[in-house]
Amino acid sequence: MFLAEGAKIVLELIGSDFPVTDVFALPPWIHAHSGLLNKFNGLVHEVNDRELDQISSLTTPQDVIACCRIPETKLPEIIPGKLFLLLDSIRDPGNMGTLIRLADWFGIDGIIASEDSVEWTNPKVIQATMGSFIRIRPAYVNMETRLSEINPEIPVYAADLGGENLYSSGFRPEGILIISNEAHGLTTGLSEFINKKLRIPRFSAQSDTGAESLNAAMAAAIMLGEFARRRLGKL
Amino acid sequence: MFLAEGAKIVLELIGSDFPVTDVFALPPWIHAHSGLLNKFNGLVHEVNDRELDQISSLTTPQDVIACCRIPETKLPEIIPGKLFLLLDSIRDPGNMGTLIRLADWFGIDGIIASEDSVEWTNPKVIQATMGSFIRIRPAYVNMETRLSEINPEIPVYAADLGGENLYSSGFRPEGILIISNEAHGLTTGLSEFINKKLRIPRFSAQSDTGAESLNAAMAAAIMLGEFARRRLGKL
Repeated sequence: MFLAEGAKIVLELIGSDFPVTDVFALPPWIHAHSGLLNKFNGLVHEVNDRELDQISSLTTPQDVIACCRIPETKLPEIIPGKLFLLLDSIRDPGNMGTLIRLADWFGIDGIIASEDSVEWTNPKVIQATMGSFIRIRPAYVNMETRLSEINPEIPVYAADLGGENLYSSGFRPEGILIISNEAHGLTTGLSEFINKKLRIPRFSAQSDTGAESLNAAMAAAIMLGEFARRRLGKL
Repeated sequence: MFLAEGAKIVLELIGSDFPVTDVFALPPWIHAHSGLLNKFNGLVHEVNDRELDQISSLTTPQDVIACCRIPETKLPEIIPGKLFLLLDSIRDPGNMGTLIRLADWFGIDGIIASEDSVEWTNPKVIQATMGSFIRIRPAYVNMETRLSEINPEIPVYAADLGGENLYSSGFRPEGILIISNEAHGLTTGLSEFINKKLRIPRFSAQSDTGAESLNAAMAAAIMLGEFARRRLGKL
């Protein structure tokens, strides 16, 4: 089980077929949304501020919290012509949530994550997804095993400071894009599976003193934007 | 005055000409970096864990904290052929820090921010910049006044869900790019100054149910990536 907090996420949950088991809310919120809550008859619980505070993982609890069952996450089938994210040792919950939200925005066909990545059910991940976890969630796998099994015609890319220029490199905008932990870089053992490393060019005025890196979520945003542009060009 | 915490940021500060007034650190850190600290002779203070904890704004303090004077931030001169960010009511410190880091990476020529945006000296902003505040910082202004004064030949763009497709729209990759608060959108009163609104296309599998928005920092990352690609194409 896990908790999802706040009106925006809970309203999205209620409108989806996600397995919500209980809703805890302040009386005014329940009255304002009684029509929507009909289908949860008996599962909606009035709580007061103190009780909400005890349930919540937030410093400043919002009006409503949903308790959900963790659905089974199927391992995505890696087939040609689609685009998948592989999250390599993403430990920061805010980054993980943002990556899930980006994958949702860009219509990524599946996310796989290394076993040492943060769980998507972590409360900070849930909040950072802004509800995108309802539509797309990572499956946790042994990365080397998974990469060794895929069809060799499917290209594997990695965001890497030592790679080819993202904007001038020729590549097919499909396959698997590996996003690594900013502090530790690409996990040793993955290199042999990578067809091309891609680098986001740095434009700092003083090229020797600019920002040293981007965090994993920013790097993914920029990479996925360029993949999206190339996919649009092919439509 | 403001505080900057952690070895990475403090080492960058020490190597720069930023006005550092004091360094507070645990003895092992001082011994490990004694060579670098020579130029701060008399300004380096040994503290113990308890004292560090009292100075720090972090839940888990790192080994070292620098205290700095706030330098005067000049209003950037908005001239043709350059690229500026205008941050419209950016309240979240993590977003603000990430935006400063992105501006540093992409060599943006200046940042201006609305007066209701979070101060760049906020400890959470400082940490999220990862040191980029040393090279680029927002100047806080009345946005309407500032926009009404610029050369009318300088294009003004805004990231907006109702705009033209970022990837297929024709535009010059220079001028001013307005990034607004994700929850509130573009501040009323700015519209009259905007030459073109640009939208990051959404690719969700179910186009009616995908992520509703991206946060300000993600939107800026994707926009600045495309501006960078077009600037590269012109080089």
